[in-house]
Amino acid sequence: MISEKYPSKLLEEAVDAISSLPGVGKRSALRLALHLLKQPQENVHHFTSAINRLRDDVIYCSDCMMISDSPRCPICSDRTRDRRTICVVASVRDVMSIENTGQYHGLYHVLGGIISPIAGVGPSDLTIGRLVERVKSLSEEGGAQVEVIMALSGDVEGETTAFYIYRQISGFGVKVSSLARGLGFGDDLEYADELTLGRSIVNRQIFKP
Amino acid sequence: MISEKYPSKLLEEAVDAISSLPGVGKRSALRLALHLLKQPQENVHHFTSAINRLRDDVIYCSDCMMISDSPRCPICSDRTRDRRTICVVASVRDVMSIENTGQYHGLYHVLGGIISPIAGVGPSDLTIGRLVERVKSLSEEGGAQVEVIMALSGDVEGETTAFYIYRQISGFGVKVSSLARGLGFGDDLEYADELTLGRSIVNRQIFKP
Repeated sequence: MISEKYPSKLLEEAVDAISSLPGVGKRSALRLALHLLKQPQENVHHFTSAINRLRDDVIYCSDCMMISDSPRCPICSDRTRDRRTICVVASVRDVMSIENTGQYHGLYHVLGGIISPIAGVGPSDLTIGRLVERVKSLSEEGGAQVEVIMALSGDVEGETTAFYIYRQISGFGVKVSSLARGLGFGDDLEYADELTLGRSIVNRQIFKP
Repeated sequence: MISEKYPSKLLEEAVDAISSLPGVGKRSALRLALHLLKQPQENVHHFTSAINRLRDDVIYCSDCMMISDSPRCPICSDRTRDRRTICVVASVRDVMSIENTGQYHGLYHVLGGIISPIAGVGPSDLTIGRLVERVKSLSEEGGAQVEVIMALSGDVEGETTAFYIYRQISGFGVKVSSLARGLGFGDDLEYADELTLGRSIVNRQIFKP
């Protein structure tokens, strides 16, 4: 057991800083601090300045609130994408995951979290207001029907957030959909949880051989 | 799977930097980068400056090569410690571990690694030269016999390093010892590896009830 006794104040402060990261304990933090100490000074400066630059200079797309290097992200700037479909996600990582599937060609809206009374996150902490504005002006533009896809987690908080948004945009005559839920490809019936298996029977799809 | 496609160059550079740490993959690095992005700017600056300060301002004790805030570490400066016993360890962490036992009252010598031809670490990359000088001048001082404790790992590299040091200091009339090896307290015979169990029979100790 490594106790609170460090041979150097500088080491202790670095360990404290590193162990403030989620999922990093004091022991791992000490290992990482001693690793950094052995690296050439310029490598360590490169490491810390990459983090500082991310935090200081990052821009969020003014349309979809995605992390970007320009005021409008490459997805929102891409004229080949379907501008009348908006996929609502909680975080930047979700956009990356969906983009990696290569199956989606519309736009996104990053909420920046999910409504969670326990974590103290209310609707005003998220970008829901902007989303409502965006959907409203899209629907007023005319043209093909606007679709909003709720790509949020399937737990109570995700459902609450989706329902909250639904109530705000349902007056605009837009189509609201949500991600299909069911067994994963390759999942074994035997090991599927009851809720998922039950829903995938109720929401069964036409067999397409 | 998160592929190589990042929505922002700044994010990508931060993820690359963080995933250069040992044991941190691209996925964890992305999670940590997005976590840092959500923190107040001053917290992130505090985090990076703690790391920079560690790397830039750290001092090594001129006697034992331990990390320190002063040119001579608190252990070497402590007049109550036995100055004629030197415990040779590979790293700073080993000093912390032994100090935490509260069972050792001598001084240390931090080698800064272990002789490893595979990793390209030779004797000249370590502080062995300084150790030999130190032991030599201690033994020439006169007084109680000097003891050098080899507190190195029990693998081939640790044994090689210990043997290399032994050959260099054996001419000075010092006592050379090494850590006791055997079953750990609370270890079950059934699950002990054969080498450890075998050695702990050969090196059995007088029963002290």
